[in-house]
Amino acid sequence: MSPQSIAVVGATNRPNSVGLAVFNNILKGGYQGVLYPVNPRAKSVQSVKAYPSLTDIPDEVDLAVIIVPAKAVCSVLEEAGQKQIKGAIIITAGFKEGGGSEGIKLENQLKEVAKKHGIRLVGPNCLGVTNNAGDVRMNASFATKMPKPGNIAFISQSGALCTAVLDFAEGRDVGFSKFISFGNKADVSEIDLLRYLKDDPDTDVILMYLEDISNGREFLETAREITWETRKPMLAIKSGRSAEGARAAASHTGSLAGSDSAYDAIFHQSGILRVEGIDELFNQAIAFAQQPIPRSNRIAIITNAGGPGIMATDAAVRHDLKIASFTEETKQKLKENLPPTASVNNPVDVIGDATHERYESSLRHILNDDNVDGAIVILTPQAMTDIKETAEVIPQVAAETDKPVLCSFMGVADVSEGIRHLEKKHIPNYSFPESAVRSMAAMARYGGLMSLDRRRVRRMAADRDTASVIISNKLTDKDSYYMPEKEANEILQCYGFPVLKSVLIKNESEVDEAAEEIVFPAAMKICSSDIIHKFDAGGVKLKIKTVEQARKAYKEIIENAHKFDPSAKIDGVIIERMAKRGVEVILGAVRDPEFGPICMFGLGGTFVEAIKDVTFRLAPMWEVSAEIMIRKIKAYNILKGVRGTPPSDIDAIKDCLLRLSQMLSDNPEIAELDINPLIVYSEGNGCVVADSRILLKTCQKSSSEENEPAVEEVNEKEFAMI
Amino acid sequence: MSPQSIAVVGATNRPNSVGLAVFNNILKGGYQGVLYPVNPRAKSVQSVKAYPSLTDIPDEVDLAVIIVPAKAVCSVLEEAGQKQIKGAIIITAGFKEGGGSEGIKLENQLKEVAKKHGIRLVGPNCLGVTNNAGDVRMNASFATKMPKPGNIAFISQSGALCTAVLDFAEGRDVGFSKFISFGNKADVSEIDLLRYLKDDPDTDVILMYLEDISNGREFLETAREITWETRKPMLAIKSGRSAEGARAAASHTGSLAGSDSAYDAIFHQSGILRVEGIDELFNQAIAFAQQPIPRSNRIAIITNAGGPGIMATDAAVRHDLKIASFTEETKQKLKENLPPTASVNNPVDVIGDATHERYESSLRHILNDDNVDGAIVILTPQAMTDIKETAEVIPQVAAETDKPVLCSFMGVADVSEGIRHLEKKHIPNYSFPESAVRSMAAMARYGGLMSLDRRRVRRMAADRDTASVIISNKLTDKDSYYMPEKEANEILQCYGFPVLKSVLIKNESEVDEAAEEIVFPAAMKICSSDIIHKFDAGGVKLKIKTVEQARKAYKEIIENAHKFDPSAKIDGVIIERMAKRGVEVILGAVRDPEFGPICMFGLGGTFVEAIKDVTFRLAPMWEVSAEIMIRKIKAYNILKGVRGTPPSDIDAIKDCLLRLSQMLSDNPEIAELDINPLIVYSEGNGCVVADSRILLKTCQKSSSEENEPAVEEVNEKEFAMI
Repeated sequence: MSPQSIAVVGATNRPNSVGLAVFNNILKGGYQGVLYPVNPRAKSVQSVKAYPSLTDIPDEVDLAVIIVPAKAVCSVLEEAGQKQIKGAIIITAGFKEGGGSEGIKLENQLKEVAKKHGIRLVGPNCLGVTNNAGDVRMNASFATKMPKPGNIAFISQSGALCTAVLDFAEGRDVGFSKFISFGNKADVSEIDLLRYLKDDPDTDVILMYLEDISNGREFLETAREITWETRKPMLAIKSGRSAEGARAAASHTGSLAGSDSAYDAIFHQSGILRVEGIDELFNQAIAFAQQPIPRSNRIAIITNAGGPGIMATDAAVRHDLKIASFTEETKQKLKENLPPTASVNNPVDVIGDATHERYESSLRHILNDDNVDGAIVILTPQAMTDIKETAEVIPQVAAETDKPVLCSFMGVADVSEGIRHLEKKHIPNYSFPESAVRSMAAMARYGGLMSLDRRRVRRMAADRDTASVIISNKLTDKDSYYMPEKEANEILQCYGFPVLKSVLIKNESEVDEAAEEIVFPAAMKICSSDIIHKFDAGGVKLKIKTVEQARKAYKEIIENAHKFDPSAKIDGVIIERMAKRGVEVILGAVRDPEFGPICMFGLGGTFVEAIKDVTFRLAPMWEVSAEIMIRKIKAYNILKGVRGTPPSDIDAIKDCLLRLSQMLSDNPEIAELDINPLIVYSEGNGCVVADSRILLKTCQKSSSEENEPAVEEVNEKEFAMI
Repeated sequence: MSPQSIAVVGATNRPNSVGLAVFNNILKGGYQGVLYPVNPRAKSVQSVKAYPSLTDIPDEVDLAVIIVPAKAVCSVLEEAGQKQIKGAIIITAGFKEGGGSEGIKLENQLKEVAKKHGIRLVGPNCLGVTNNAGDVRMNASFATKMPKPGNIAFISQSGALCTAVLDFAEGRDVGFSKFISFGNKADVSEIDLLRYLKDDPDTDVILMYLEDISNGREFLETAREITWETRKPMLAIKSGRSAEGARAAASHTGSLAGSDSAYDAIFHQSGILRVEGIDELFNQAIAFAQQPIPRSNRIAIITNAGGPGIMATDAAVRHDLKIASFTEETKQKLKENLPPTASVNNPVDVIGDATHERYESSLRHILNDDNVDGAIVILTPQAMTDIKETAEVIPQVAAETDKPVLCSFMGVADVSEGIRHLEKKHIPNYSFPESAVRSMAAMARYGGLMSLDRRRVRRMAADRDTASVIISNKLTDKDSYYMPEKEANEILQCYGFPVLKSVLIKNESEVDEAAEEIVFPAAMKICSSDIIHKFDAGGVKLKIKTVEQARKAYKEIIENAHKFDPSAKIDGVIIERMAKRGVEVILGAVRDPEFGPICMFGLGGTFVEAIKDVTFRLAPMWEVSAEIMIRKIKAYNILKGVRGTPPSDIDAIKDCLLRLSQMLSDNPEIAELDINPLIVYSEGNGCVVADSRILLKTCQKSSSEENEPAVEEVNEKEFAMI
């Protein structure tokens, strides 16, 4: 990122060529090191002495920027290796991005050559890299614009997007510390870049445009270090939300978990704020880059017009901000400084004829109020409005506190001078109050994240060895195996889940004896690895109250099962005490081929499925993550207790989620799992597993997990996954 | 709106005054009529001869624009009356908007004077009125900017917002036919303005900023005429969403219906698209003003960069658009015109080096595909991109079809020349694909609305007289009365609702006889107007299977009820057949003091309450409205049938909603109502009311309803409320 010398291979004087554009950007961008053009057919490029090849350059070279045709790239890279160049940026396209076998082959060759020589590679198929640090000032890209210096880093998987973003950023007066297009990431990935940006003193805020993540686990690890160690806010656009492939799934959870849930979980757990569009990305980035993070979400609004004040209030409520209630003292002070028709409640309406003095005193009183965490100042250009003076006092008052202040001087032309002054003083301005509110809300959300209790993964007592033996026995002669409830419960029991005592009845003569061990009313269910949907098979009988009924039920269940699937291997019928009624929730898990084990939580019933009201987190997770998973479902109110029903035992659910998280980390063979329902009782009365199923598969360890430390070590780490 | 002559009362030469601003705006705005300044202390204003008072003007005056201090306004209006002036715009503030008693008094006086003289009044407390029609060209406002001519009308309850919007519109090159700030609407309201705009030949699209609606019924009536007769799209911001007052409610429905639900219902039923912010308002307005409405929601995307294409796809899916599947023919044609690495699926990636020819042929083939209803063209400025030429071919190709084309030439400076050309040719451009997609989605939604089946209100057979008698009997000696299930069902039965047969048991000795009339298993419930929440009172026993059990249940229920509320007047206990299991839904109603009867629909259970998954519509409603109410809940999937359960009898629910709608229209005394649950069976098997309650109140006719035609006439009208 900070080379002392750069060679541009493919630099040329040919007009409108990428080779010229890149060379000129470095040359004219004020690069602080030495620049060498490499071109076998030119004596000089832009008056700078050219060399026929890299190896012809007499001095040491730190970085090669390569723009030659795709087929020639490998040999250039070979030369770079011989020259002992440590880094390369490959601008050239025509590799795996096209999807053709030729391109993929070329890219693999590229990787091999780079690996052989220990060269770190950005690209291919990228716009290039810009480092605005004062002692580097390198614009090694073919962008038509040089980004302005600033404290925001932008990394993008799409080069074309970069050009549009640069153009847009110029209009918004946004400055960058680093601006990096990383293309096909044959070598350097978003994770490498995050590691670099983590320690980059010029970067305070990191923006990302991602189309995929190479290694979810590593990404998560790196990102959360940034969030909780260096505390640089990260905002990301992850596109391809709708590209979810249909996924064949045996479990309820499997059918609910799209690939995007894994991304959402990763972003949540690493403290990255996910945004939908570029507009929003920049609106929020500016706020993060220029203003302090609010302590909480209680905001004040000052306006000189009623309408925009109401619109801001609406937006605040919509985005989970609170409209602060002022203290009596604040209201008194506001009253003293405002005309009698002004509103001293929040939003504060300083009235259409407000001058800058009125804005100044109101803003000061409000920011001094302990009930206020941040302020939004709205100004509409009216007859008496002194826009410039108001723009001058706001930064002054804002500087007296450590609370964020965002502005919405509404309009374009009339307020432009005021906006320019605000921007100069690092007070973000938004054309409309809604955008200011959204940015404030993002900061408040981030602030809330920062304040989370960062406890270790709570290790739950577990008989890991027994579980491991049970699992490997099932997989000795097959690649995958579906564990029916009876067997699944055995594993769950090893991890301390509250399961019901059940007895397996293998033939009719065993019914009486089994029934004796169970408290009536009882449930009876078919037990077969070949029958996944027990209800559909007529394999469940509930509310059995006598031994006689149990005998009848046994016969019927066996008959139904044979009818349903004559080839099914049937282990028998289990009988267990009927669980008492309570709130039904579902706990689930899937193992993503890329990201490893992911836990799911939601309320039970078809309703949940219909509206997909579930949350996901990667395992292992922090204790606080389990809590957030529960709190973040839309129907959380039901667990809190509605309409006179008592609150549910949320701690018991949390324990189960942590047990699940641990079980998944310990046993990579668990591919899918449903605990559906887990019946939850009122506070203090725990919960019970009323049905469960587990799908086992061999070799389910994801590529990302291979380099992970053993689970015992994970628990010793300061950071687990929130 | 089109005066031949205007008098500006309070016109002055004083710099920076509103009086000067308004006068100058009319004078210099190219007004086509005669302008008179009125000022007792000036001989001329801006070189135009001034008159001391309105009555001193020798000629006829059509419109008075009044800018004198609040206290002097009434006497000026008196003069206007004497002068037989027909219209007035009162710019002056200081009336009821301050909330003070003095201001309210002044405004009432104003109304009286205007009424006495038959003067129509805009304002007070407004920015003024602009009419850009070529033969008028009146800018009777103190805005610092004259809006450009165009086919969009903007009406706003907030004056301050107008100034900001004008400033913004100038930057976006948006033109207006009318630009009207209507302030406190002492006389002319949004409804009057809508009536005017309906027939205004210069207006194709109507934008509104509203803080309240004066008369919901009339507003609805007027707006839906615009939607379904003159077919001018309307977009509205209604602020104050979060200002919902807490409302004491006896019914489930009452607690779910906030005041905002009524607004949402009004907008839905009148075809107005509700938007959140000004940005969105304009983004969508431009699309509606310049492009045809798509036939359906299948869109095609063309892009020269992968990333933005994926982002557009994500946004499309998020906003309920479909990514069109091209015919094989289209794919073949695309293939012929594109390089082999290009994608001929949707989105079509014409690759980074695309020239305008590639864009042109791709767009043409796509728009010719019958599977495509509209196209979004994305362009990122890259090395080979010929921006200007591409901007030239797009409008040409678009003009060949009647399908909408929206562009996203990304960035600001680089693409500015292209954007200017697109704008000139009326192809809307958006800096980011998301905004283009959102606008397309709004158009598709509107198109869907337009295509709705506009049937009359379906009159259901009903015994209206009996219902009316039952209701009035209950209210003979009180203002409000809570009807328990037994009585509520009698009313429901008059309107043809499927209710269960029930027998009221008044004392223990009647149990046996009553039980004989009922098919077991039965439900028994307390019947008392004083016990609203029967379950909480221990007043419900289910699954009664024998007469013996019924006797026991009777005793327990009576005992529980006495314990629960010793003062409750108890009618007895009802016994009825237990309804068979099915899907539980809730039908409800509230009567809004402003908007009249509103129907609610949702799925049953606490879950619905927790996530507020319900829809509202004003009664009376169209048949199609009932259908939309059912389809628009998030959990609609459940009614369609999930996981092997059969689809529910949606027609039966629809019938019930129409019966409910009619019952509410017929009986203004019904203040609140719950049918909870209505149990719905599989297709063709109907539904049954399993519990109900009705709250009656006298004088519940809302102010809006007073002028309504009788219900019989409503049914004859072409337009009912969708």
